[in-house]
Parts: sequence; structure tokens; C-alpha cells
Amino acid sequence: MTTSSRRSEPELRKDPVLGRWVIIAGERSRRPNPFRSYTTVVPGGDACPFCPGHESMTPKEVLLYQAGTETPGGDPWRVRVVPNLYPALRIEGDHDNRGEGLYDMMRGIGAHEIVVETPRHDEDPASFTREQMGEVIQAWRERMIDLLRDTRFQYVLVFKNHGPAAGASLQHAHSQIIALPVTPGRIEMELVGTERYFSYRGRCIYCDILQQELADPRRLVAQNADFVAFAPFASRFPFEVTILPRKHEPFFQTVTPALTASLAEILIDVLRRYKLALKDPPYNYVLHTAPPGFPHPDRYHWQVELLPKLTEVAGFEWGSGFFINPMPPEEAAQALRDLERVMDVPDGHLLTTSGA
Amino acid sequence: MTTSSRRSEPELRKDPVLGRWVIIAGERSRRPNPFRSYTTVVPGGDACPFCPGHESMTPKEVLLYQAGTETPGGDPWRVRVVPNLYPALRIEGDHDNRGEGLYDMMRGIGAHEIVVETPRHDEDPASFTREQMGEVIQAWRERMIDLLRDTRFQYVLVFKNHGPAAGASLQHAHSQIIALPVTPGRIEMELVGTERYFSYRGRCIYCDILQQELADPRRLVAQNADFVAFAPFASRFPFEVTILPRKHEPFFQTVTPALTASLAEILIDVLRRYKLALKDPPYNYVLHTAPPGFPHPDRYHWQVELLPKLTEVAGFEWGSGFFINPMPPEEAAQALRDLERVMDVPDGHLLTTSGA
Repeated sequence: MTTSSRRSEPELRKDPVLGRWVIIAGERSRRPNPFRSYTTVVPGGDACPFCPGHESMTPKEVLLYQAGTETPGGDPWRVRVVPNLYPALRIEGDHDNRGEGLYDMMRGIGAHEIVVETPRHDEDPASFTREQMGEVIQAWRERMIDLLRDTRFQYVLVFKNHGPAAGASLQHAHSQIIALPVTPGRIEMELVGTERYFSYRGRCIYCDILQQELADPRRLVAQNADFVAFAPFASRFPFEVTILPRKHEPFFQTVTPALTASLAEILIDVLRRYKLALKDPPYNYVLHTAPPGFPHPDRYHWQVELLPKLTEVAGFEWGSGFFINPMPPEEAAQALRDLERVMDVPDGHLLTTSGA
Repeated sequence: MTTSSRRSEPELRKDPVLGRWVIIAGERSRRPNPFRSYTTVVPGGDACPFCPGHESMTPKEVLLYQAGTETPGGDPWRVRVVPNLYPALRIEGDHDNRGEGLYDMMRGIGAHEIVVETPRHDEDPASFTREQMGEVIQAWRERMIDLLRDTRFQYVLVFKNHGPAAGASLQHAHSQIIALPVTPGRIEMELVGTERYFSYRGRCIYCDILQQELADPRRLVAQNADFVAFAPFASRFPFEVTILPRKHEPFFQTVTPALTASLAEILIDVLRRYKLALKDPPYNYVLHTAPPGFPHPDRYHWQVELLPKLTEVAGFEWGSGFFINPMPPEEAAQALRDLERVMDVPDGHLLTTSGA
């Protein structure tokens, strides 16, 4: 291996004090726009690699939901999952754990895939039908199950960046899947926290949070038969929302088709509330699920965390771990709830909400 | 107390799973521009509350370094520390710890002060003289010592937001001081990590990091007689820099006048390197110091962490605790080192650098 190819090989490095792993992905700095640009270019039209007809601009798909034949001349596919052209991790090789003095590192193996959520360049996920969002969620699940067959991977992270300010470098609606050889720091901290609560109370803390939020509905945003969306008590950011399944279950990949449809419904509901209340904000969401083989399934609860990107205060919080949130979650929840009378889902059914 | 005044009272809330405290500061949403604006207004001229002659636009100062009488008609002061007009915390009251079901909260007591670093509106900290930066550092120290006399406070956080994208809502150079009734999450994690290392190796981990970085200078950025600036091995962000004192010392507030001058020198050095290499980037820095009365002074080491705000990827990392850094710290350090021949400090002395 030459020095120059070595340079671009991604590497996982462990912070010696905090124990947290970071991907050092030199390769990604060759992207068209690796660092922040205040006028981020979001190509559309001919330049978009996610539009139908441009499939050759991405690596070959690993999953494709083809459109039915009932619409000749229509969209060729509904959801398409492709490897990222600028992956943060490489699929080949073994861990190759090693030390360098007091530092630990390993080869940056993993997978980095893009879920193209719709064939239509301008379609906003907040306007998806339930069926379409349901297929996106089904694609996450299928890819998660497939990636976890590879025993080198300890975790599969599913997330979405929407809008340039939230880190999206392409406008065409897409989510991302990263398979990792380590468990992310935040998930590790959640496992420690849920264990601490369980050892004291003998119950899943998220089940107890659900009960308390339902009993005192000031922070509720929306709910349906299977899910509850609320603004967390100690929200770090304005309009943060957590979607919790009502039924205790640690592993996302167990979702049934019925639960998938129900999650699609409430996810669209929250995204539409964001769009209406916050004027189409940039946002991120992240799926939290137990690591595969997690031995204590009674004390974790999968969920979706949604974070609109409204404030610009990152560096200080990165350095201190200390958060100042100017918007009480009770007020945020109320603002998001109060929209319900103007909201219709595209198929004509009113969304079920906390006020219904 | 009426409901409406109650609404604005800041509150500290503990995340029930992660154990992390968050300030919910409703009052701050009344600032002129509480949420992110893509064209943040940074008033200058008559609107700037930090310019000489506008002292009545801020609360009365808690510390003032007056200018000497040798320059009649010149600046009335050199450094001015004032309470924040929109504080995240209130100075009055006691903790009033209380629970609400499984949630914990306390009254948001604390102090929030602004260090106006120069009387000149347009002066960039990267162009400060050593004397001027030394006075800013001295002001941090004086205020820290004074605030820690109040036994309700467990920690004093000193930080800087430079540029709108890094959270600065005013252009006039300033840093901030927040006194907290709890220790910030990141500092807690550092104390756990340094303890783990000490229990195994019997040494301060930061002293060992310093030795390793000096022995293998690929990540060195600059150094002088008392401090070493380097890009951390597991940098989360491009061009992250840590400034470590060579001498083991857990408490920042012990800095002597000689060390203050030396810290001023290397801080200006790093800021000038940022300015030249990264074209005047937005950035944050945070002072890390042991909590007052920390009982194990042999296992913590105060330091300054600097974070340029070049990438826009916050939400995903907030949700996952997982970082992807497209710039290897060895390359970042080299880019910052290679500037040395063009750099002069304003008083005409060449800065001491790692290459000297």
C-alpha cells in the first residue's frame, strides 16, 4: 500500500480521555464541498445524482423498490438505496485494532449508504403519503437486517439531514445508513442510563417516561394508536421531539408492517408540524435502537429523535457539554399542537393528534 | 409570583437517562434574534452596546480595567465586564432542587457575564497585542475567583463565540462567563476519564498526552516556553486545537502574571493561524478547568479547546454522539504550522512556533 492511498483510508480513533470514537475520513475532504459554505450549492436538474435517469451517477443500488407496471411512463422506482459515493467508512478489511502510545485506533471499516426516498427531486418528506414514508422505513429495516449479518458491525445508525444548514449537501430527499464497528457514544450513554434506572426501579425508564408524558400532556405533540410524539423534558434545542413506541421493544428491526405504517403516519405528522410552525426548517432525525445482541432487552426502548436546526450555538456546547435552550418544551409542544386544525394528510384522512 | 413572570424564570433540568443538565431559559427567547437567522444582524456603530460611550446600554460593569491617563482623549477603558442583558441564569435565590415524577429540576441560578475585550468595535482578537489579550485572560481569572466565592456555584465556564455562525450575536469582540450550580456534562466525563487513566497508570493523562505529542510532532501547531498547541488525536472537527500548559496544574485560576502573558501569546498565535489558513473562520473556544475543591488535583490539567466552525453537521452528531471528521488532524496541524514565516505579532516579535 502506498503512502498516498494510505492517506485516504478512513480510520476510527478513540478519544483517550472520553472513550468516544471518531471517524477520521480524509477521503471525504475530496467531496465537492467538504467544509461549510455559507451558500451551500444544492444541485437540482441535470446535476442531481438521485433523480431517475441519473442512476449511473451513483454506485449500483443495494436495494430497489420498483414502481408498479400500472403507471406506464411513470416513475421507474419508488425508493432506491445506494452506497455513498464519498463514504465515511470502507466496506473492505478487518478491524485491525492497534495502539500508538496511549492512543487507540482501528481501520475505518463499515458501510455508508444513501436511501433515496422518492424519485421526485422537489418532493418534501413532509408531503409524503403514508405509503411512501412506510417504504422508506421498510428500506431502513431491510438494510439494517442485512448489514447486521456482517459480524464486524456493532451498530447501524439511521439518520436524516434535511436542508443545507442541517448538513444535507443534496436537496433531493434522502436519509443515510451507517454501519459501524463500534457503538456510538450517545447510545452507550443511553444504555448506561437505562441500566442505572432499571437497577433502581426494575422498569424500563422510557416506559415510565411515556406514562408520565401521557398523564401530564403539556409536552405532547401528537399521538396515534402505536406512537407518542412529545417534547422531551430536558430538551437541549427548541422544538426537539421524541417519537416513542407505546409498546416496549428495544430493537427497531422488529417493526411489523402495521407498526411501519403507524410510524410513517406520526413521522409525517411531526414533519408537517415543523414545516407549518417553523417555516420549513432544516432538521435532523436519528433512529435510536439497541445494539444487536444487546443482552438486556427489558431496559431499552427504540425511538426516533428529531432536532430542528434553529439555533447556531454549536461550538460552545461541543466544548462544554452544556446546553442552553431558549424555548421551554411545554411552549414548543403547544405551538406544534395548535396547528392541528389546518393539517390534512395527502390521502385525505385527518391525522390523529393529541388533541383528538 | 404571577404565572407570566414565572414563565421567564430560567430552570435547570436533568435528562433522566443521560444525567445531563440543561438550562431552559425562556427569557432568552425575548432577545432580538433568539433563533437562528441565516442573515444574522450584527449591529455596529450607534447600535453596539459594547462601544465606549454606550455603557448605559448594558447593566453596570462588575469589573473595569481603566485606560491610563497617559493618552488624553483616548479610550476610557481597556476591558469591561458586564452582566449579560439577556442572562441564561439568574443571580438571585437558592437551588430549590425538586422532582416532578421521574424528572429532576432546580431553579436556574447562576451568573452570566460578558467580557468586552477591547474598546474598539472592529478590532479582531487575532490582532490583539499580548498585553491586551493578557488583560482579557486576567479578567476571566478575576471574575472566576470572585464568582467562586459564592458557594452556590459549582463551576465557572469561560468561553468565546466568534462570528455569527459560531453563535455570536454581536460583532464587538467579547467572551462570556457563566457560573453554574452544577458541573457541565463534558467536564464530568473528563473527570471520569482522567480518573480511569490515573487508577491504571498512576499519572495525569494530559501530562502523558503532552509527552507523546512532543515526541511525535506531527500534530503540533505551536509552542512556547509554557504552552503547547496541538490538533487532538481524535479531533471531532477540522482544525480543532488544544492548548495545554506544560506544567501540570488542574485549576486555571492559579495562573500567574507570567503564565497569563504566555497564554496570551499562544492564544493570539493560534487565532492568527486560523485567520490566515482558514480565511477568518467563525470559531469557539472553551476553557476547561477542574471544579473548585476538586479533591484529586494530581489527575486533571486545565486547558483551552478551540473549535473553528467550518462544517455544518450538528444535528446528526447531537443525536448519535458519533463524529465524522473529514480532515485528519496531522494534515490540519501541518497546514497551521506552515504559516509561520508570514506571522508577526503586532509588537514586532516573531511568535515562537513548533518549527523554531
